Amino acid sequence: MTLTERVQDALAPWVPRNSRVLLAVSGGADSVALAHLIKTLPYDPVIAHVDHQLRSGSARDAQFVGRLASQWGMPFRLKKTNVARFARRHGLGLEDAGRQLRYAALTDFANKSRCSFILTAHNANDQAETVLMNFLRGAGPAGLSGIPPVRNITGKVRLIRPLLSVTRQEIRRYLQTHRLSYREDPSNRSLRFTRNRIRHQLLPLLDKQFPGLKERLVGVAEVFREEQSLWTPQVNKELRKTVRKNNKNITVDLTRLLGYHRALGRRILRHLLTGISFQDTERIFHLALSTNGHLPIQLAGGLQVQRKGNKLIFPKRTA
Amino acid sequence: MTLTERVQDALAPWVPRNSRVLLAVSGGADSVALAHLIKTLPYDPVIAHVDHQLRSGSARDAQFVGRLASQWGMPFRLKKTNVARFARRHGLGLEDAGRQLRYAALTDFANKSRCSFILTAHNANDQAETVLMNFLRGAGPAGLSGIPPVRNITGKVRLIRPLLSVTRQEIRRYLQTHRLSYREDPSNRSLRFTRNRIRHQLLPLLDKQFPGLKERLVGVAEVFREEQSLWTPQVNKELRKTVRKNNKNITVDLTRLLGYHRALGRRILRHLLTGISFQDTERIFHLALSTNGHLPIQLAGGLQVQRKGNKLIFPKRTA
Repeated sequence: MTLTERVQDALAPWVPRNSRVLLAVSGGADSVALAHLIKTLPYDPVIAHVDHQLRSGSARDAQFVGRLASQWGMPFRLKKTNVARFARRHGLGLEDAGRQLRYAALTDFANKSRCSFILTAHNANDQAETVLMNFLRGAGPAGLSGIPPVRNITGKVRLIRPLLSVTRQEIRRYLQTHRLSYREDPSNRSLRFTRNRIRHQLLPLLDKQFPGLKERLVGVAEVFREEQSLWTPQVNKELRKTVRKNNKNITVDLTRLLGYHRALGRRILRHLLTGISFQDTERIFHLALSTNGHLPIQLAGGLQVQRKGNKLIFPKRTA
Repeated sequence: MTLTERVQDALAPWVPRNSRVLLAVSGGADSVALAHLIKTLPYDPVIAHVDHQLRSGSARDAQFVGRLASQWGMPFRLKKTNVARFARRHGLGLEDAGRQLRYAALTDFANKSRCSFILTAHNANDQAETVLMNFLRGAGPAGLSGIPPVRNITGKVRLIRPLLSVTRQEIRRYLQTHRLSYREDPSNRSLRFTRNRIRHQLLPLLDKQFPGLKERLVGVAEVFREEQSLWTPQVNKELRKTVRKNNKNITVDLTRLLGYHRALGRRILRHLLTGISFQDTERIFHLALSTNGHLPIQLAGGLQVQRKGNKLIFPKRTA
């Protein structure tokens, strides 16, 4: 199967023919390949570029993508952001801040351009790196499911990643075959970022010692994504029975929580408190089970949990 | 809590007071500490040592453990094995062969000594190493649940690991405090074995870059162990409906298999074909779903899968 056919196969179940699709194009290898692949397929693409203005060369990337769009006859949308300021204001890392601003801008473009679909160029290597990174951070099943190939951003806009099973090598080969040029983002090389350390150092090292690791990590993501899709409806159903929210607090019914199998109870807590560590779920169960003295506990991140009778009470987060 | 109290807490739910327990003692740090801890607790210990005769020093290890047993007034059982021959005959690695022979000998001792409980000295570091190793080998949820703290070996004999939440460092400190000597197994240092490479090189490297990794891996094992215990009854129930075995073959009803959520279907296959890779489960689903031509497929390890109508047929393995 050619790469074009694989992209078509990945999109066909989700995107009706001739739909308007918003392509997130940084100007890097992956997104240039994606835009070129889409050009020959029966969709109506709009190219979007988000300029984070973190590097002096960033304006030239934007120009590069703009020229590509005009050469290929695709409408072009450009958004400039101030990531550094946003990161400072919200106490975020640059990577996190960049991602948040990027998806906000893309969603905004999608709405304005009446696109129901945003396409990004994440590939199988990104997937393997994400699974490994999440594992090293202590992720449970949700984190091990990696980057989702399809995700609803709003009720109207869906994010799709048609290259998620394509390797970086296959993409490079496609670019060579079609003599396509692209921009190198120098920050992709900086080992300041965990992601780059994993990409350039750790994963190549591990893949040498455990051959085939990258492919296995992509499989791990798929196994856990399937399991998530089986669990999620059940967790949501029990969550509605177990948890009450008002303007200020979230209240968890302990009789119910402790009545569940611990695996389900833990999933309910993880769903309620995204990113909670194993240790913190353990501490919550400990508080829930204790028979004497119910001092409030403080979770990582500062969230305080109180117990009153057979209720746990969290303040609603104001993020 | 002292280490003695922690061991008592780990045993109390499983082992009635004054029970006879078989301690697997290699003479290394962990098992010497375990034997010393058990000495002060209300159990009736028998010390068992399995001499794999792989190293010239192995007989001295056996003597060391025998002396310890007589000093501490515990009965002593010794079994000599020929691991190298067993490994050759069954096409196994030395590690695997050693493990199989060791557990067979321990079970035999337990039966003969009327012990319902075998205790081994696996610790939290072993657990973290196992989870990491299984992850790098592409394990799914079963492999990520690591070393079980409790496992039924036969209907009558249960294996228990009361040190599984105790770190290697805590064990060393205990040995120092009590001025206990132990034997160093030089093969624990050999980087020929994957386990040792993970222990001495990879995990220390990763734990430096991702502080707290070891503790998180122990948590990962617990999360997945809980999930296994929730899944297993359901998988077994559906397995009985979906799979038929006779003397020669295993037959899988495809109408049922494909009717399940893919996550459950995959778990049924993984349960049926222990250690099957993600890629091989994918190939089986592909064969099950194909509408034209049903050529048999060959799985890793040589097992052949045929499709006949809405049945999959595997030869029963003769391991």
